[in-house]
Amino acid sequence: MKLMNARGTRDFPPEEKIVRQKIIATLMTTFELFGFSPLETPLIERFEMLSAKYAGGAEILKETFRFKDQGDRELGLRYDLTVPLARFVGMNPTLKMPFKRYQIGRVFRDGPIKTGRMREFWQCDVDIVGSSSMLADAQCVQIAQNFFKDLGLDVNIEISSRKLLDGIIESCEIPEDKRMAVILEIDKLRKVGINEAQKSIHALGVNNAATERLMEILSTKGSNFEKLEKMKELVNNRKAADGLKELEELFTYIDEKDVVLNLSLSRGLSYYTGPVFEVFLKDEKQFGSSLAGGGRWDNMIGEFLGSIKKYPAVGISFGLEPITAVLSMVKKEEILQQTVTRLYIIPINTANECVAIAQELRKAGVNTDMDLMVRGVSKNLEYANRLAIPYVLFVGGDEIKQKKYKLRDMKTGKEEMLDLKGVVKRIK
Amino acid sequence: MKLMNARGTRDFPPEEKIVRQKIIATLMTTFELFGFSPLETPLIERFEMLSAKYAGGAEILKETFRFKDQGDRELGLRYDLTVPLARFVGMNPTLKMPFKRYQIGRVFRDGPIKTGRMREFWQCDVDIVGSSSMLADAQCVQIAQNFFKDLGLDVNIEISSRKLLDGIIESCEIPEDKRMAVILEIDKLRKVGINEAQKSIHALGVNNAATERLMEILSTKGSNFEKLEKMKELVNNRKAADGLKELEELFTYIDEKDVVLNLSLSRGLSYYTGPVFEVFLKDEKQFGSSLAGGGRWDNMIGEFLGSIKKYPAVGISFGLEPITAVLSMVKKEEILQQTVTRLYIIPINTANECVAIAQELRKAGVNTDMDLMVRGVSKNLEYANRLAIPYVLFVGGDEIKQKKYKLRDMKTGKEEMLDLKGVVKRIK
Repeated sequence: MKLMNARGTRDFPPEEKIVRQKIIATLMTTFELFGFSPLETPLIERFEMLSAKYAGGAEILKETFRFKDQGDRELGLRYDLTVPLARFVGMNPTLKMPFKRYQIGRVFRDGPIKTGRMREFWQCDVDIVGSSSMLADAQCVQIAQNFFKDLGLDVNIEISSRKLLDGIIESCEIPEDKRMAVILEIDKLRKVGINEAQKSIHALGVNNAATERLMEILSTKGSNFEKLEKMKELVNNRKAADGLKELEELFTYIDEKDVVLNLSLSRGLSYYTGPVFEVFLKDEKQFGSSLAGGGRWDNMIGEFLGSIKKYPAVGISFGLEPITAVLSMVKKEEILQQTVTRLYIIPINTANECVAIAQELRKAGVNTDMDLMVRGVSKNLEYANRLAIPYVLFVGGDEIKQKKYKLRDMKTGKEEMLDLKGVVKRIK
Repeated sequence: MKLMNARGTRDFPPEEKIVRQKIIATLMTTFELFGFSPLETPLIERFEMLSAKYAGGAEILKETFRFKDQGDRELGLRYDLTVPLARFVGMNPTLKMPFKRYQIGRVFRDGPIKTGRMREFWQCDVDIVGSSSMLADAQCVQIAQNFFKDLGLDVNIEISSRKLLDGIIESCEIPEDKRMAVILEIDKLRKVGINEAQKSIHALGVNNAATERLMEILSTKGSNFEKLEKMKELVNNRKAADGLKELEELFTYIDEKDVVLNLSLSRGLSYYTGPVFEVFLKDEKQFGSSLAGGGRWDNMIGEFLGSIKKYPAVGISFGLEPITAVLSMVKKEEILQQTVTRLYIIPINTANECVAIAQELRKAGVNTDMDLMVRGVSKNLEYANRLAIPYVLFVGGDEIKQKKYKLRDMKTGKEEMLDLKGVVKRIK
């Protein structure tokens, strides 16, 4: 038997899992401060559900892991957290609206493997179902603001509107059957630049005048306020007017610091219907991929459920992988931790007493470990050192008598004789 | 399309997921206080790995969800967290020993569905690899003690030893080829009673004298100390002596309050090699299933890896399902929470100001939500009531001017005019 992971999956050893857990804990705290409650849905879903209309689309379905149970039922692994949310809402008609849930969990896609793209990866989604007010969209933006601030990452939150973009495209007289394709090209603008995007759109069969007008509008410069005013002048149709009204209301609710109206932000997915958001590290040269993204998606749940009832919804999804990557890059020193242990006790023929001391320290909230190998001092020090445990406590017979123990700060090498209270104080 | 879950899977709506998250958070805190670090392994593993010798056994393999990726590779969903741990240890030969990890996650078994048994369920495992000292076993027992105390559940921790049990069985002159079968019958003793167990063991072809002697020894009464002394008299062989020595050492490290030496505790699995533990609610009539269990398993990793190197190991696994069930039964009032929201703001034509107030309260650490539907007061009150949000804040124009707001305690109905500091103080 070869020892290896399944293709596209990987282990997260403690030093990586500790960082990921910190990010998840910060996300959960932020979500809960905004009154979002946790929801858990299964990893296994009925294939019929995963393949229903609007459930992700043909591209994703091809990448769905598919299998049968012993009763020959067709099953699959979930490829996102949105379809299960739609199912949950449909199965629980007595849910009080707005239904505000977050869900953090793994999803699976049996697709090509590139850097940063695995077959098993995490999604951290927060969504509000049932409210069409811009107050709901504002909460999504604020969650991103609070979260990245707590994490100490300097980001820009880019905002745009699918309604406004539709209005702009319409005003350029681009034929309706080409509009979704044009939106997909606009989505690539950030990466390929304006010239390449212009060529691609032209190649779709859009005439030069329309393409140029589109590029000109999307390139409008100025503050958020100035851009909104300019749009009112340049684009005169119902869709644009609706989109502008929504954006104006949204901006009254949020702190606009580090919020950028990016007219060419389109978010590729077809199901967005209103404001869209995407979060990038300010220093894009350091890290160019988006860290979070979302928007309003008012039609998807109703269409998925085949229901006349409307389920307006807005949400934002945080990428655990890119956020971890950025944190590890920006704050390497601070976050690299190979163990959660803060104190390691080295007994010198005092195992029983050390068991009791360790329990005392745990009661005081100190993550405490001790020698479990009955090793000598130097081997124990090497172990503590290799795991980068910050403090070591030496406990011999004399120390027990005097109830004072030698605490070594493993970074500075400084040693002190302290009682247990002193030890707790020094470490905390 | 029928809206339903895959068979053997279920959703956890907020009111259930909140309880589960509390239990998981308490487990994580406890594990980390003992210096265990988190490890994450994939849900998908290569089928070759899952079906390797010692990897769970034939019974479990039959219940493994099995499928292929697009590259025709044989895969499966993990059925426990032990086999992935063994793989991880094998793939990381530079790991410093002891390797102390915890892992909380889902496992899958495509088996028959009974009450409390799903096809997708959680395991919460903590294991120490690399130490054969009873100090390691003691940590597993202490973790259970600390955890259930923190949860406020009154439990007994039953302890026994596979070595001692082997010694007892040997001393009864039960033929070697029947010993594992006898252990499985002893495992059922708690449920079926002594008479039934005796019959079943006899039915295995064990003679009457041996069966009776076995039952007599296993029924030994007395304190832990008295039982150990009695065993020394009754059972005279190397295995029993080794087991007794281990138990005696283990008992010197732990607080014996609520720790019961149960000689007939056998833990069905064949891979245990030393002390075994199992945790039950003291009031077994209220809840009879075990809440946690574990023991020493010194041979499995080495055998799995086909290695001459020894990997002694000991661990304990907590059952999220039974613990949740017990908590919901014992402390229904306390833990039933439909939302994490603590305060709900009802704006009276003051949406913008309320957005700012909500942000202030979140900064102070209060989980705060507000009307997102632009509804009237009575509809908002009904919503807060249905979600059992404990506090509601009314914010009208006058309140904004005076910077004092009406806070209603939804349980008592009591109302007070408070500034934001006062609101935070009252809620926290």
